[in-house]
Amino acid sequence: MDNFRFYVPTDIRFGKDRLNTELTDVLDVYGKNVLLVYGGGSIKKNGLYKQVIELLGKNHNKVVELSGVEPNPRIETVRRGVALCRENDVNVILAVGGGSTIDCAKVVAAGVYSDEDPWDIIVARKGYQGEALPIVTILTLAATGSEMNAGAVISNLTTNQKLGIGGPSMIPKVSFLDPKNTFTVPTYQTAAGSADILSHLFESYFNVTEGTDIQDFVSEGIMRAVIKNCPVALATPDNYDARANLMWSSSLALNGLTRNGKHGVWSCHAMEHELSAFYDITHGIGLAILTPRWMNYVLNEKTVTRFAQFAHNVWGINEKDPMLAAKKGIQATYDFFKTCDIPMTLPEVGIDEEKFEEMAKQAVAHSTIKTEAFVPLAESDVEAIYRECLTESSFA
Amino acid sequence: MDNFRFYVPTDIRFGKDRLNTELTDVLDVYGKNVLLVYGGGSIKKNGLYKQVIELLGKNHNKVVELSGVEPNPRIETVRRGVALCRENDVNVILAVGGGSTIDCAKVVAAGVYSDEDPWDIIVARKGYQGEALPIVTILTLAATGSEMNAGAVISNLTTNQKLGIGGPSMIPKVSFLDPKNTFTVPTYQTAAGSADILSHLFESYFNVTEGTDIQDFVSEGIMRAVIKNCPVALATPDNYDARANLMWSSSLALNGLTRNGKHGVWSCHAMEHELSAFYDITHGIGLAILTPRWMNYVLNEKTVTRFAQFAHNVWGINEKDPMLAAKKGIQATYDFFKTCDIPMTLPEVGIDEEKFEEMAKQAVAHSTIKTEAFVPLAESDVEAIYRECLTESSFA
Repeated sequence: MDNFRFYVPTDIRFGKDRLNTELTDVLDVYGKNVLLVYGGGSIKKNGLYKQVIELLGKNHNKVVELSGVEPNPRIETVRRGVALCRENDVNVILAVGGGSTIDCAKVVAAGVYSDEDPWDIIVARKGYQGEALPIVTILTLAATGSEMNAGAVISNLTTNQKLGIGGPSMIPKVSFLDPKNTFTVPTYQTAAGSADILSHLFESYFNVTEGTDIQDFVSEGIMRAVIKNCPVALATPDNYDARANLMWSSSLALNGLTRNGKHGVWSCHAMEHELSAFYDITHGIGLAILTPRWMNYVLNEKTVTRFAQFAHNVWGINEKDPMLAAKKGIQATYDFFKTCDIPMTLPEVGIDEEKFEEMAKQAVAHSTIKTEAFVPLAESDVEAIYRECLTESSFA
Repeated sequence: MDNFRFYVPTDIRFGKDRLNTELTDVLDVYGKNVLLVYGGGSIKKNGLYKQVIELLGKNHNKVVELSGVEPNPRIETVRRGVALCRENDVNVILAVGGGSTIDCAKVVAAGVYSDEDPWDIIVARKGYQGEALPIVTILTLAATGSEMNAGAVISNLTTNQKLGIGGPSMIPKVSFLDPKNTFTVPTYQTAAGSADILSHLFESYFNVTEGTDIQDFVSEGIMRAVIKNCPVALATPDNYDARANLMWSSSLALNGLTRNGKHGVWSCHAMEHELSAFYDITHGIGLAILTPRWMNYVLNEKTVTRFAQFAHNVWGINEKDPMLAAKKGIQATYDFFKTCDIPMTLPEVGIDEEKFEEMAKQAVAHSTIKTEAFVPLAESDVEAIYRECLTESSFA
């Protein structure tokens, strides 16, 4: 196990119906001027927007809105947010939405304190050590874990780049996690969010660091919670406990708990980021499509032990031959995504082989997967994995 | 799943050899006057005391010592610590030791800010909402989880009471977790600490709240990490990864992760606290002795599903009949403690039936196990469970 630091001071307020009694007290710690950040308007349909506006109105807050944050939030929106904060002397940012909205809020919060253009901070790729406006979130989608970590991913469609940034001041101060706020999330987004959560777990689980049982066994537990509860939430969208399990899994999958003490970089995220950057597809769907093909591609005599452990501990597969067990585990992963009604080929989401070579080059250029991944991946490997996604697959 | 708040702002510095470069920076945030709290002197034998004193000396700290904290820390020691803090204008408390030392430091930290006698704060049983001196810990024993939570347990031998107290200001600001600092922990204490960790997990796992997969599956993962790594640490005390897994398990087992979102009170701790209060035995050993007997005592048609899940997911028992699976899981728990060389009867730790009735009364009087436990326990139940611990047991 490597040395690590674990410091996650987000104050999680989990459960139903807490906003009326807690939201304004939380915001008042920082001031009265609030930047309200949200996405495409789903919070206007389900009543959450109205509730928040009424609470802030009664509390005499000055509310400025940054709306229309994109599913892959864009740098232009971040710039717009920074300008709004400066013009209105904003004290605290309230992000109401999923990971995209929260990610956008984080870079706005940091951008306010920087003389540089926000994209320059991101492109520098050094993380962010400066100050940021305090962020409070109301989560509406179980997926990215952004509600309880310091990271953000922003897209620049003019340069076809989707890059990450993070820093200690960007972690939300308080996050409200009410599973009821995810009842209206459509089936497709629920499945995509669950795939995203699982991918966060997979990325750190398939790793070369030794002696990390505690991280790995905890990760297996969170995986099993997602695998059990996602189908329930898909079948009965207002099942409170299923939504609650998915929501808390989202936060725990990417707050450091399963990644701390390990080294190496993620593979599928690097490959997926290019799909989203070039085609603007839903992140979790891209991950679901890539993951089983990647697993099968990197399965070998050296990695088989870990994949067999995965098959047994996560999928309950009792198979003595490690290679066969591993393949059954990969098949189970693929089948799970299929039963969640995720389109499991790239053509189904409008991607053909035209840009595979270019995207593969970018995936390697924008990351260190060629040297530091679980199994290092060169451009030709990435392209081969993309190619496996052209048709349906069978692994065991 | 119940509503819950999760706010654990302890800054964990995990891994080897961090003190030389980080300790004084951490302390200097709060001031130069340090109360150094430690136990029976094991840190003098293994060199940790010398290292800390040298670092603080070079940093021009004023160091006052509260030494000799008991394995079940006593209220007299707390009072001594409060007086030292007041006399020396202490800015920060540095607790170097296991859970007892840290627990003592927490109540000293709170006591400094209170006009009441510390025991009166504890006896009031309302928790502690006031201020406290900042606490930094250097953990030397994987067991209680006190390094990452707000709770403390203090004994009063004059009244035969062992009671808990906790409050937001009592959570350590920073905890240094270096697995190497546990290399010299003797076999008996390593086993007792592991039993303590497992008991923290069991107490919340065997619970009536529904829809808590995420908490339960995570808990099963931590249990498996302890069950795998404790025997390794016993056989090879300087196995870094085994010690690392136990150490981080200790913190995660009682920081809220596996208990949040559930209601109900713990059973074995209430029964064990009386054994320690009356006979001053090692807490973890008392828990190990009681736990399998308690499990078997509360196993019934209503609880069998949970015990069968435990047998399968934690012990890997593949047995279709739920009742038989449950019994095998209980047997596996008992056998595990035996293989860790834990004395598994009360007479082996010097306790006979003389005070069973009195202790059973106290266990019920000092807790709400009669109404709020997984399976409610009256005085006669507690006495029957104590009685089961007089001789070796067999469950399956």
